[in-house]
Amino acid sequence: MTATQQKTAAMVAIGDELLSGRTRDANIHFLAGWLTERGVALSEVRIVLDEEADIVAAINALRPKYDYVFTSGGIGPTHDDITADAVARTFGVPIGERADALKVLGDWYAARGEEITDARRRMARIPTGAALIPNTVSGAPGFRMENVFTMAGVPKIFEAMLDAVDAEIERGPVRHAVTVRGHARESQLADGLRALQTAIKGLSIGSYPGRKGDGSDGVAIVLRSTDEALLGDAAKAVASLFASIGVTAETLPGAHAVD
Amino acid sequence: MTATQQKTAAMVAIGDELLSGRTRDANIHFLAGWLTERGVALSEVRIVLDEEADIVAAINALRPKYDYVFTSGGIGPTHDDITADAVARTFGVPIGERADALKVLGDWYAARGEEITDARRRMARIPTGAALIPNTVSGAPGFRMENVFTMAGVPKIFEAMLDAVDAEIERGPVRHAVTVRGHARESQLADGLRALQTAIKGLSIGSYPGRKGDGSDGVAIVLRSTDEALLGDAAKAVASLFASIGVTAETLPGAHAVD
Repeated sequence: MTATQQKTAAMVAIGDELLSGRTRDANIHFLAGWLTERGVALSEVRIVLDEEADIVAAINALRPKYDYVFTSGGIGPTHDDITADAVARTFGVPIGERADALKVLGDWYAARGEEITDARRRMARIPTGAALIPNTVSGAPGFRMENVFTMAGVPKIFEAMLDAVDAEIERGPVRHAVTVRGHARESQLADGLRALQTAIKGLSIGSYPGRKGDGSDGVAIVLRSTDEALLGDAAKAVASLFASIGVTAETLPGAHAVD
Repeated sequence: MTATQQKTAAMVAIGDELLSGRTRDANIHFLAGWLTERGVALSEVRIVLDEEADIVAAINALRPKYDYVFTSGGIGPTHDDITADAVARTFGVPIGERADALKVLGDWYAARGEEITDARRRMARIPTGAALIPNTVSGAPGFRMENVFTMAGVPKIFEAMLDAVDAEIERGPVRHAVTVRGHARESQLADGLRALQTAIKGLSIGSYPGRKGDGSDGVAIVLRSTDEALLGDAAKAVASLFASIGVTAETLPGAHAVD
Protein backbone atom coordinates (compact mmCIF):
# COMPACT_ATOMS: atom_id res chain seq x y z
CA MET A 1 0.00 0.00 0.00
CA THR A 2 1.51 3.32 -1.04
CA ALA A 3 1.43 6.48 1.05
CA THR A 4 -1.15 8.03 -1.25
CA GLN A 5 -3.69 5.26 -0.80
CA GLN A 6 -6.55 5.82 1.59
CA LYS A 7 -7.48 3.34 4.27
CA THR A 8 -11.09 2.23 4.08
CA ALA A 9 -13.70 1.73 6.77
CA ALA A 10 -17.19 0.39 7.30
CA MET A 11 -19.72 0.69 10.10
CA VAL A 12 -22.40 -1.52 11.61
CA ALA A 13 -25.02 0.48 13.53
CA ILE A 14 -26.92 -1.89 15.80
CA GLY A 15 -30.35 -1.40 17.32
CA ASP A 16 -34.07 -2.03 16.85
CA GLU A 17 -34.71 1.63 17.68
CA LEU A 18 -32.83 2.77 14.55
CA LEU A 19 -35.11 0.68 12.33
CA SER A 20 -38.43 1.37 14.07
CA GLY A 21 -38.28 5.12 13.53
CA ARG A 22 -37.87 5.87 17.25
CA THR A 23 -34.29 7.09 16.98
CA ARG A 24 -32.61 8.95 14.15
CA ASP A 25 -29.04 7.70 14.16
CA ALA A 26 -26.39 10.35 14.79
CA ASN A 27 -23.26 8.20 14.88
CA ILE A 28 -23.08 7.37 11.16
CA HIS A 29 -22.92 11.02 10.20
CA PHE A 30 -20.40 11.78 12.95
CA LEU A 31 -18.13 8.88 12.02
CA ALA A 32 -18.31 9.84 8.32
CA GLY A 33 -17.03 13.34 9.03
CA TRP A 34 -14.44 12.11 11.54
CA LEU A 35 -12.94 9.60 9.10
CA THR A 36 -12.99 12.06 6.20
CA GLU A 37 -10.93 14.50 8.29
CA ARG A 38 -8.38 11.73 8.83
CA GLY A 39 -8.15 10.73 5.19
CA VAL A 40 -9.97 7.42 5.72
CA ALA A 41 -12.76 6.51 3.31
CA LEU A 42 -16.00 5.31 4.95
CA SER A 43 -17.23 3.00 2.22
CA GLU A 44 -20.26 1.14 3.55
CA VAL A 45 -22.66 1.22 6.48
CA ARG A 46 -25.15 -1.39 7.60
CA ILE A 47 -27.92 -0.86 10.13
CA VAL A 48 -29.13 -4.08 11.73
CA LEU A 49 -31.57 -5.24 14.41
CA ASP A 50 -30.63 -6.44 17.89
CA GLU A 51 -30.39 -10.00 16.53
CA GLU A 52 -27.17 -11.91 17.04
CA ALA A 53 -27.24 -13.64 13.65
CA ASP A 54 -27.73 -10.32 11.85
CA ILE A 55 -24.89 -8.63 13.74
CA VAL A 56 -22.52 -11.54 13.11
CA ALA A 57 -23.37 -11.64 9.40
CA ALA A 58 -22.80 -7.91 8.96
CA ILE A 59 -19.45 -7.83 10.76
CA ASN A 60 -18.23 -10.94 8.96
CA ALA A 61 -19.16 -9.48 5.59
CA LEU A 62 -17.32 -6.22 6.26
CA ARG A 63 -14.18 -7.07 8.24
CA PRO A 64 -12.28 -8.86 5.45
CA LYS A 65 -13.23 -6.11 2.98
CA TYR A 66 -12.26 -2.91 4.81
CA ASP A 67 -9.29 -1.79 6.92
CA TYR A 68 -11.46 -0.77 9.87
CA VAL A 69 -14.96 -1.72 11.02
CA PHE A 70 -16.75 0.29 13.70
CA THR A 71 -19.86 -0.93 15.48
CA SER A 72 -22.23 1.20 17.56
CA GLY A 73 -24.81 0.06 20.08
CA GLY A 74 -25.73 -2.93 22.19
CA ILE A 75 -22.95 -2.95 24.81
CA GLY A 76 -24.94 -1.77 27.82
CA PRO A 77 -26.20 -3.76 30.83
CA THR A 78 -29.67 -4.81 29.65
CA HIS A 79 -31.09 -7.93 27.99
CA ASP A 80 -31.11 -6.23 24.54
CA ASP A 81 -27.36 -5.58 24.71
CA ILE A 82 -25.97 -8.53 22.78
CA THR A 83 -23.20 -7.02 20.68
CA ALA A 84 -20.29 -8.32 22.79
CA ASP A 85 -21.60 -11.89 22.46
CA ALA A 86 -22.12 -11.38 18.73
CA VAL A 87 -18.53 -10.18 18.28
CA ALA A 88 -17.22 -13.17 20.24
CA ARG A 89 -19.18 -15.48 17.98
CA THR A 90 -17.95 -13.58 14.91
CA PHE A 91 -14.35 -14.27 15.85
CA GLY A 92 -15.02 -17.73 17.28
CA VAL A 93 -13.59 -16.85 20.69
CA PRO A 94 -15.02 -17.31 24.21
CA ILE A 95 -16.58 -14.45 26.14
CA GLY A 96 -16.68 -14.01 29.88
CA GLU A 97 -16.20 -11.50 32.65
CA ARG A 98 -12.67 -10.17 32.34
CA ALA A 99 -10.57 -9.00 35.28
CA ASP A 100 -9.24 -5.93 33.44
CA ALA A 101 -12.73 -4.80 32.46
CA LEU A 102 -14.08 -5.51 35.94
CA LYS A 103 -11.29 -3.37 37.42
CA VAL A 104 -12.17 -0.49 35.06
CA LEU A 105 -15.81 -0.71 36.15
CA GLY A 106 -14.93 -1.15 39.82
CA ASP A 107 -12.67 1.91 39.81
CA TRP A 108 -15.27 3.96 37.95
CA TYR A 109 -18.08 3.21 40.36
CA ALA A 110 -15.86 3.33 43.46
CA ALA A 111 -14.79 6.86 42.50
CA ARG A 112 -18.49 7.75 42.53
CA GLY A 113 -19.28 5.95 45.79
CA GLU A 114 -21.37 3.33 44.00
CA GLU A 115 -21.52 -0.45 43.90
CA ILE A 116 -21.03 -2.79 40.95
CA THR A 117 -24.36 -4.56 40.70
CA ASP A 118 -24.83 -7.82 38.81
CA ALA A 119 -26.27 -5.89 35.89
CA ARG A 120 -23.24 -3.62 35.75
CA ARG A 121 -20.88 -6.62 35.98
CA ARG A 122 -22.42 -7.76 32.71
CA MET A 123 -20.55 -4.89 31.04
CA ALA A 124 -17.26 -6.58 32.03
CA ARG A 125 -18.05 -9.44 29.66
CA ILE A 126 -15.48 -8.98 26.87
CA PRO A 127 -14.41 -11.44 24.14
CA THR A 128 -11.10 -13.16 24.80
CA GLY A 129 -8.23 -11.39 23.04
CA ALA A 130 -9.94 -8.02 22.65
CA ALA A 131 -8.24 -4.79 23.78
CA LEU A 132 -10.39 -2.48 25.89
CA ILE A 133 -11.44 0.94 24.61
CA PRO A 134 -11.70 3.50 27.43
CA ASN A 135 -15.04 5.20 28.08
CA THR A 136 -14.50 8.58 29.73
CA VAL A 137 -18.24 9.31 29.81
CA SER A 138 -19.81 6.39 31.66
CA GLY A 139 -17.07 3.91 32.52
CA ALA A 140 -18.08 0.70 30.74
CA PRO A 141 -15.44 0.02 28.07
CA GLY A 142 -15.73 -0.78 24.39
CA PHE A 143 -13.19 -3.10 22.83
CA ARG A 144 -11.11 -3.70 19.75
CA MET A 145 -10.81 -7.17 18.21
CA GLU A 146 -8.42 -7.20 15.23
CA ASN A 147 -9.79 -4.48 12.92
CA VAL A 148 -13.23 -4.31 14.56
CA PHE A 149 -13.93 -1.50 17.07
CA THR A 150 -17.01 -2.23 19.20
CA MET A 151 -18.39 0.95 20.70
CA ALA A 152 -21.43 2.35 22.48
CA GLY A 153 -24.54 3.66 20.73
CA VAL A 154 -25.12 6.73 22.91
CA PRO A 155 -23.59 9.46 20.72
CA LYS A 156 -21.61 11.17 23.47
CA ILE A 157 -20.01 7.84 24.44
CA PHE A 158 -19.49 6.78 20.81
CA GLU A 159 -17.62 10.03 20.17
CA ALA A 160 -15.52 9.68 23.33
CA MET A 161 -14.52 6.14 22.27
CA LEU A 162 -13.50 7.43 18.84
CA ASP A 163 -11.27 9.96 20.61
CA ALA A 164 -9.80 7.07 22.60
CA VAL A 165 -8.82 5.09 19.48
CA ASP A 166 -7.72 8.09 17.41
CA ALA A 167 -4.04 7.14 17.56
CA GLU A 168 -4.82 3.65 16.21
CA ILE A 169 -6.25 5.00 12.94
CA GLU A 170 -3.72 5.38 10.14
CA ARG A 171 -4.08 8.73 8.40
CA GLY A 172 -4.38 8.91 4.64
CA PRO A 173 -4.26 11.78 2.22
CA VAL A 174 -7.15 14.05 3.14
CA ARG A 175 -9.61 14.71 0.35
CA HIS A 176 -10.36 18.41 0.35
CA ALA A 177 -13.70 19.68 -0.81
CA VAL A 178 -14.83 22.81 -2.62
CA THR A 179 -18.44 23.69 -3.34
CA VAL A 180 -19.55 25.71 -6.35
CA ARG A 181 -23.22 26.55 -6.11
CA GLY A 182 -25.75 28.74 -7.78
CA HIS A 183 -29.24 29.36 -9.00
CA ALA A 184 -29.68 26.60 -11.62
CA ARG A 185 -31.06 23.13 -12.19
CA GLU A 186 -28.56 20.31 -12.21
CA SER A 187 -29.80 19.19 -15.64
CA GLN A 188 -28.44 22.46 -17.08
CA LEU A 189 -24.92 21.52 -15.95
CA ALA A 190 -25.07 17.77 -16.47
CA ASP A 191 -23.31 17.57 -19.84
CA GLY A 192 -20.52 19.92 -18.78
CA LEU A 193 -19.97 18.06 -15.52
CA ARG A 194 -19.79 14.74 -17.32
CA ALA A 195 -17.12 16.13 -19.65
CA LEU A 196 -15.19 17.51 -16.67
CA GLN A 197 -15.38 14.19 -14.81
CA THR A 198 -13.94 12.42 -17.85
CA ALA A 199 -11.22 15.03 -18.41
CA ILE A 200 -9.81 15.36 -14.89
CA LYS A 201 -8.31 12.37 -13.12
CA GLY A 202 -8.29 12.27 -9.33
CA LEU A 203 -11.36 14.46 -9.01
CA SER A 204 -14.75 13.41 -7.71
CA ILE A 205 -17.76 15.53 -8.64
CA GLY A 206 -21.06 15.35 -6.78
CA SER A 207 -24.13 17.23 -7.99
CA TYR A 208 -26.81 17.96 -5.38
CA PRO A 209 -30.02 19.77 -6.25
CA GLY A 210 -31.99 21.67 -3.65
CA ARG A 211 -34.30 24.56 -3.02
CA LYS A 212 -32.82 27.95 -2.27
CA GLY A 213 -34.14 30.07 0.58
CA ASP A 214 -36.57 31.83 -1.75
CA GLY A 215 -38.00 28.49 -2.94
CA SER A 216 -36.28 28.58 -6.34
CA ASP A 217 -34.07 25.83 -7.78
CA GLY A 218 -30.45 25.66 -6.78
CA VAL A 219 -27.64 23.19 -7.26
CA ALA A 220 -24.46 22.58 -5.27
CA ILE A 221 -21.54 21.00 -7.10
CA VAL A 222 -19.16 19.44 -4.58
CA LEU A 223 -15.65 18.74 -5.87
CA ARG A 224 -13.25 16.53 -3.94
CA SER A 225 -9.58 15.76 -4.43
CA THR A 226 -6.44 15.24 -2.40
CA ASP A 227 -4.73 17.72 -4.79
CA GLU A 228 -5.60 21.28 -3.81
CA ALA A 229 -4.20 22.89 -6.96
CA LEU A 230 -6.27 20.56 -9.13
CA LEU A 231 -9.29 21.36 -6.97
CA GLY A 232 -8.83 25.11 -7.54
CA ASP A 233 -8.67 24.62 -11.32
CA ALA A 234 -11.72 22.37 -11.28
CA ALA A 235 -13.70 24.91 -9.24
CA LYS A 236 -12.91 27.58 -11.85
CA ALA A 237 -14.08 25.23 -14.60
CA VAL A 238 -17.37 24.61 -12.79
CA ALA A 239 -17.87 28.34 -12.21
CA SER A 240 -17.41 28.76 -15.97
CA LEU A 241 -20.11 26.13 -16.59
CA PHE A 242 -22.48 28.19 -14.45
CA ALA A 243 -21.40 31.37 -16.30
CA SER A 244 -22.11 29.68 -19.67
CA ILE A 245 -25.79 29.43 -18.69
CA GLY A 246 -25.79 33.00 -17.41
CA VAL A 247 -25.52 32.16 -13.69
CA THR A 248 -23.08 33.74 -11.26
CA ALA A 249 -21.90 30.93 -8.98
CA GLU A 250 -20.54 31.10 -5.46
CA THR A 251 -17.36 29.12 -4.68
CA LEU A 252 -16.63 28.19 -1.08
CA PRO A 253 -14.32 25.78 0.72
CA GLY A 254 -15.82 22.60 2.13
CA ALA A 255 -18.86 20.50 1.19
CA HIS A 256 -22.10 22.41 1.38
CA ALA A 257 -25.75 22.19 0.43
CA VAL A 258 -27.55 24.67 -1.80
CA ASP A 259 -28.13 27.33 0.82
CA MET B 1 -48.29 -16.36 5.58
CA THR B 2 -50.90 -15.76 8.26
CA ALA B 3 -52.70 -12.48 8.83
CA THR B 4 -50.69 -11.83 11.98
CA GLN B 5 -47.30 -12.02 10.26
CA GLN B 6 -45.57 -8.79 9.38
CA LYS B 7 -44.12 -8.09 5.97
CA THR B 8 -40.43 -7.18 6.09
CA ALA B 9 -38.47 -4.50 4.29
CA ALA B 10 -34.92 -3.33 3.69
CA MET B 11 -33.41 -0.14 2.33
CA VAL B 12 -30.35 0.78 0.28
CA ALA B 13 -29.40 4.45 0.68
CA ILE B 14 -27.08 5.40 -2.16
CA GLY B 15 -24.64 8.28 -2.32
CA ASP B 16 -21.04 9.34 -1.67
CA GLU B 17 -22.36 12.38 0.21
CA LEU B 18 -23.91 10.14 2.91
CA LEU B 19 -20.55 8.51 3.61
CA SER B 20 -18.34 11.61 3.41
CA GLY B 21 -20.11 13.44 6.22
CA ARG B 22 -21.53 16.10 3.90
CA THR B 23 -25.15 14.97 4.21
CA ARG B 24 -26.91 13.47 7.18
CA ASP B 25 -29.42 11.04 5.68
CA ALA B 26 -33.06 11.79 6.44
CA ASN B 27 -34.77 9.10 4.37
CA ILE B 28 -33.84 6.11 6.53
CA HIS B 29 -35.50 7.58 9.58
CA PHE B 30 -38.54 8.67 7.58
CA LEU B 31 -38.97 5.25 5.94
CA ALA B 32 -38.56 3.50 9.30
CA GLY B 33 -41.45 5.45 10.82
CA TRP B 34 -43.58 5.15 7.68
CA LEU B 35 -43.23 1.36 7.56
CA THR B 36 -43.78 0.96 11.30
CA GLU B 37 -47.11 2.82 10.96
CA ARG B 38 -48.11 0.31 8.27
CA GLY B 39 -47.16 -2.76 10.27
CA VAL B 40 -44.14 -3.54 8.05
CA ALA B 41 -40.83 -4.35 9.76
CA LEU B 42 -37.80 -2.49 8.41
CA SER B 43 -35.13 -5.08 9.14
CA GLU B 44 -31.91 -3.90 7.52
CA VAL B 45 -30.43 -0.81 5.87
CA ARG B 46 -27.27 -0.47 3.83
CA ILE B 47 -25.61 2.79 2.85
CA VAL B 48 -23.36 2.47 -0.19
CA LEU B 49 -21.23 4.68 -2.45
CA ASP B 50 -22.14 5.78 -5.98
CA GLU B 51 -20.45 2.65 -7.34
CA GLU B 52 -22.42 0.32 -9.58
CA ALA B 53 -20.91 -2.88 -8.20
CA ASP B 54 -21.69 -1.83 -4.62
CA ILE B 55 -25.29 -0.92 -5.45
CA VAL B 56 -25.85 -4.19 -7.33
CA ALA B 57 -24.36 -6.27 -4.51
CA ALA B 58 -26.51 -4.58 -1.87
CA ILE B 59 -29.80 -4.93 -3.78
CA ASN B 60 -29.05 -8.53 -4.71
CA ALA B 61 -28.28 -9.42 -1.11
CA LEU B 62 -31.52 -7.90 0.16
CA ARG B 63 -34.21 -8.58 -2.44
CA PRO B 64 -34.48 -12.34 -1.91
CA LYS B 65 -34.47 -11.89 1.86
CA TYR B 66 -37.16 -9.24 2.43
CA ASP B 67 -40.64 -8.57 1.05
CA TYR B 68 -39.81 -5.03 -0.04
CA VAL B 69 -36.57 -3.21 -0.83
CA PHE B 70 -36.47 0.59 -1.15
CA THR B 71 -33.54 2.47 -2.65
CA SER B 72 -32.90 6.20 -2.35
CA GLY B 73 -30.63 8.35 -4.45
CA GLY B 74 -28.84 8.39 -7.78
CA ILE B 75 -31.72 8.78 -10.23
CA GLY B 76 -31.14 12.40 -11.31
CA PRO B 77 -29.68 13.74 -14.58
CA THR B 78 -25.97 13.95 -13.73
CA HIS B 79 -22.97 11.66 -14.25
CA ASP B 80 -23.09 10.46 -10.64
CA ASP B 81 -26.68 9.20 -11.05
CA ILE B 82 -26.14 5.53 -11.82
CA THR B 83 -28.82 3.77 -9.82
CA ALA B 84 -31.12 3.00 -12.79
CA ASP B 85 -28.26 1.28 -14.60
CA ALA B 86 -27.34 -0.60 -11.43
CA VAL B 87 -30.92 -1.85 -11.01
CA ALA B 88 -31.02 -2.97 -14.66
CA ARG B 89 -27.83 -4.92 -14.11
CA THR B 90 -29.18 -6.34 -10.85
CA PHE B 91 -32.16 -7.84 -12.69
CA GLY B 92 -30.23 -8.66 -15.88
CA VAL B 93 -32.53 -6.58 -18.08
CA PRO B 94 -31.75 -3.90 -20.68
CA ILE B 95 -32.11 -0.21 -19.91
CA GLY B 96 -32.93 2.58 -22.37
CA GLU B 97 -35.06 5.64 -22.85
CA ARG B 98 -38.66 4.57 -22.44
CA ALA B 99 -41.58 6.19 -24.25
CA ASP B 100 -43.81 6.22 -21.16
CA ALA B 101 -41.14 7.89 -19.03
CA LEU B 102 -40.32 10.37 -21.78
CA LYS B 103 -44.00 11.30 -22.00
CA VAL B 104 -44.13 11.89 -18.23
CA LEU B 105 -41.10 14.18 -18.46
CA GLY B 106 -42.36 15.90 -21.63
CA ASP B 107 -45.74 16.65 -20.06
CA TRP B 108 -44.09 17.88 -16.86
CA TYR B 109 -41.78 20.34 -18.58
CA ALA B 110 -44.37 21.38 -21.20
CA ALA B 111 -46.75 22.34 -18.39
CA ARG B 112 -43.99 24.66 -17.14
CA GLY B 113 -43.09 26.08 -20.56
CA GLU B 114 -39.71 24.30 -20.54
CA GLU B 115 -37.80 22.04 -22.90
CA ILE B 116 -36.55 18.51 -22.36
CA THR B 117 -32.81 18.86 -22.68
CA ASP B 118 -30.51 15.89 -23.34
CA ALA B 119 -29.58 15.81 -19.67
CA ARG B 120 -33.25 15.67 -18.67
CA ARG B 121 -33.94 12.93 -21.24
CA ARG B 122 -31.47 10.82 -19.29
CA MET B 123 -34.09 10.57 -16.55
CA ALA B 124 -36.34 8.66 -19.01
CA ARG B 125 -33.86 5.76 -18.98
CA ILE B 126 -35.74 3.03 -17.10
CA PRO B 127 -35.00 -0.71 -16.91
CA THR B 128 -37.18 -2.87 -19.16
CA GLY B 129 -40.13 -4.30 -17.27
CA ALA B 130 -40.16 -1.74 -14.45
CA ALA B 131 -43.36 0.14 -13.49
CA LEU B 132 -42.98 3.90 -13.13
CA ILE B 133 -43.44 5.59 -9.76
CA PRO B 134 -44.95 9.09 -10.10
CA ASN B 135 -42.99 12.09 -8.84
CA THR B 136 -45.35 14.92 -7.95
CA VAL B 137 -42.48 17.16 -6.84
CA SER B 138 -40.12 17.37 -9.79
CA GLY B 139 -41.48 15.16 -12.58
CA ALA B 140 -38.76 12.56 -13.16
CA PRO B 141 -40.21 9.19 -12.13
CA GLY B 142 -38.89 6.45 -9.91
CA PHE B 143 -39.69 2.85 -10.74
CA ARG B 144 -40.62 -0.49 -9.26
CA MET B 145 -38.98 -3.70 -10.47
CA GLU B 146 -40.45 -6.79 -8.78
CA ASN B 147 -40.10 -6.04 -5.04
CA VAL B 148 -37.53 -3.24 -5.45
CA PHE B 149 -38.70 0.38 -5.32
CA THR B 150 -36.12 2.78 -6.79
CA MET B 151 -36.69 6.31 -5.56
CA ALA B 152 -35.06 9.73 -5.37
CA GLY B 153 -32.65 10.82 -2.64
CA VAL B 154 -34.01 14.34 -2.13
CA PRO B 155 -36.18 13.83 0.98
CA LYS B 156 -39.22 15.72 -0.32
CA ILE B 157 -39.23 13.61 -3.51
CA PHE B 158 -38.49 10.38 -1.62
CA GLU B 159 -41.50 11.03 0.60
CA ALA B 160 -43.75 11.89 -2.37
CA MET B 161 -42.76 8.63 -4.06
CA LEU B 162 -43.59 6.68 -0.89
CA ASP B 163 -47.04 8.29 -0.98
CA ALA B 164 -47.33 7.17 -4.60
CA VAL B 165 -46.65 3.50 -3.78
CA ASP B 166 -48.60 3.44 -0.52
CA ALA B 167 -51.38 1.24 -1.96
CA GLU B 168 -48.81 -1.36 -3.09
CA ILE B 169 -47.58 -2.01 0.47
CA GLU B 170 -49.40 -4.80 2.27
CA ARG B 171 -50.33 -3.76 5.81
CA GLY B 172 -49.43 -5.95 8.74
CA PRO B 173 -50.41 -5.89 12.38
CA VAL B 174 -49.17 -2.58 13.74
CA ARG B 175 -46.82 -2.86 16.69
CA HIS B 176 -47.91 -0.31 19.24
CA ALA B 177 -45.40 1.29 21.56
CA VAL B 178 -45.54 2.49 25.15
CA THR B 179 -42.71 4.25 26.95
CA VAL B 180 -42.12 4.01 30.69
CA ARG B 181 -39.39 6.38 31.76
CA GLY B 182 -37.90 7.76 34.90
CA HIS B 183 -34.96 8.99 36.86
CA ALA B 184 -32.79 5.86 37.05
CA ARG B 185 -29.86 4.06 35.46
CA GLU B 186 -30.69 1.19 33.17
CA SER B 187 -28.44 -1.13 35.17
CA GLN B 188 -30.86 -0.74 38.12
CA LEU B 189 -33.66 -2.22 36.03
CA ALA B 190 -31.70 -4.72 33.97
CA ASP B 191 -32.47 -7.88 35.99
CA GLY B 192 -36.17 -7.10 36.21
CA LEU B 193 -36.41 -6.33 32.50
CA ARG B 194 -34.69 -9.57 31.60
CA ALA B 195 -37.18 -11.51 33.73
CA LEU B 196 -40.06 -9.65 32.07
CA GLN B 197 -38.71 -10.34 28.58
CA THR B 198 -38.53 -14.04 29.38
CA ALA B 199 -41.98 -14.14 30.97
CA ILE B 200 -44.03 -12.30 28.35
CA LYS B 201 -44.27 -13.65 24.80
CA GLY B 202 -44.93 -11.23 21.94
CA LEU B 203 -43.40 -8.28 23.74
CA SER B 204 -40.23 -6.45 22.74
CA ILE B 205 -38.45 -4.39 25.38
CA GLY B 206 -35.88 -1.73 24.53
CA SER B 207 -33.88 0.04 27.22
CA TYR B 208 -32.41 3.44 26.30
CA PRO B 209 -30.32 5.44 28.74
CA GLY B 210 -30.00 9.19 28.43
CA ARG B 211 -29.49 12.40 30.33
CA LYS B 212 -32.50 14.23 31.70
CA GLY B 213 -32.90 17.97 31.21
CA ASP B 214 -31.19 18.63 34.55
CA GLY B 215 -28.16 16.51 33.50
CA SER B 216 -29.03 13.57 35.74
CA ASP B 217 -29.36 9.95 34.57
CA GLY B 218 -32.60 8.80 33.04
CA VAL B 219 -33.78 5.70 31.25
CA ALA B 220 -36.62 5.15 28.79
CA ILE B 221 -38.04 1.64 28.54
CA VAL B 222 -39.85 1.24 25.22
CA LEU B 223 -42.31 -1.66 25.05
CA ARG B 224 -43.71 -2.85 21.72
CA SER B 225 -46.41 -5.34 20.88
CA THR B 226 -49.27 -5.82 18.44
CA ASP B 227 -51.44 -6.68 21.48
CA GLU B 228 -52.57 -3.52 23.26
CA ALA B 229 -53.90 -5.28 26.35
CA LEU B 230 -50.63 -7.10 26.82
CA LEU B 231 -48.81 -3.80 26.35
CA GLY B 232 -50.85 -2.16 29.10
CA ASP B 233 -50.04 -4.98 31.52
CA ALA B 234 -46.36 -4.86 30.62
CA ALA B 235 -46.23 -1.10 31.16
CA LYS B 236 -47.65 -1.58 34.67
CA ALA B 237 -45.02 -4.24 35.37
CA VAL B 238 -42.24 -1.87 34.28
CA ALA B 239 -43.67 0.96 36.37
CA SER B 240 -43.55 -1.46 39.32
CA LEU B 241 -39.88 -2.14 38.57
CA PHE B 242 -39.19 1.57 38.81
CA ALA B 243 -41.26 1.75 42.02
CA SER B 244 -39.22 -1.11 43.53
CA ILE B 245 -36.12 1.10 43.36
CA GLY B 246 -38.03 4.08 44.73
CA VAL B 247 -38.57 5.87 41.41
CA THR B 248 -41.89 7.24 40.18
CA ALA B 249 -42.03 6.52 36.46
CA GLU B 250 -43.98 8.27 33.74
CA THR B 251 -45.92 6.11 31.26
CA LEU B 252 -46.82 7.55 27.87
CA PRO B 253 -48.02 6.20 24.53
CA GLY B 254 -45.49 5.93 21.71
CA ALA B 255 -41.71 5.49 21.62
CA HIS B 256 -39.84 8.28 23.34
CA ALA B 257 -36.42 9.23 24.61
CA VAL B 258 -35.60 10.09 28.21
CA ASP B 259 -36.88 13.65 28.10
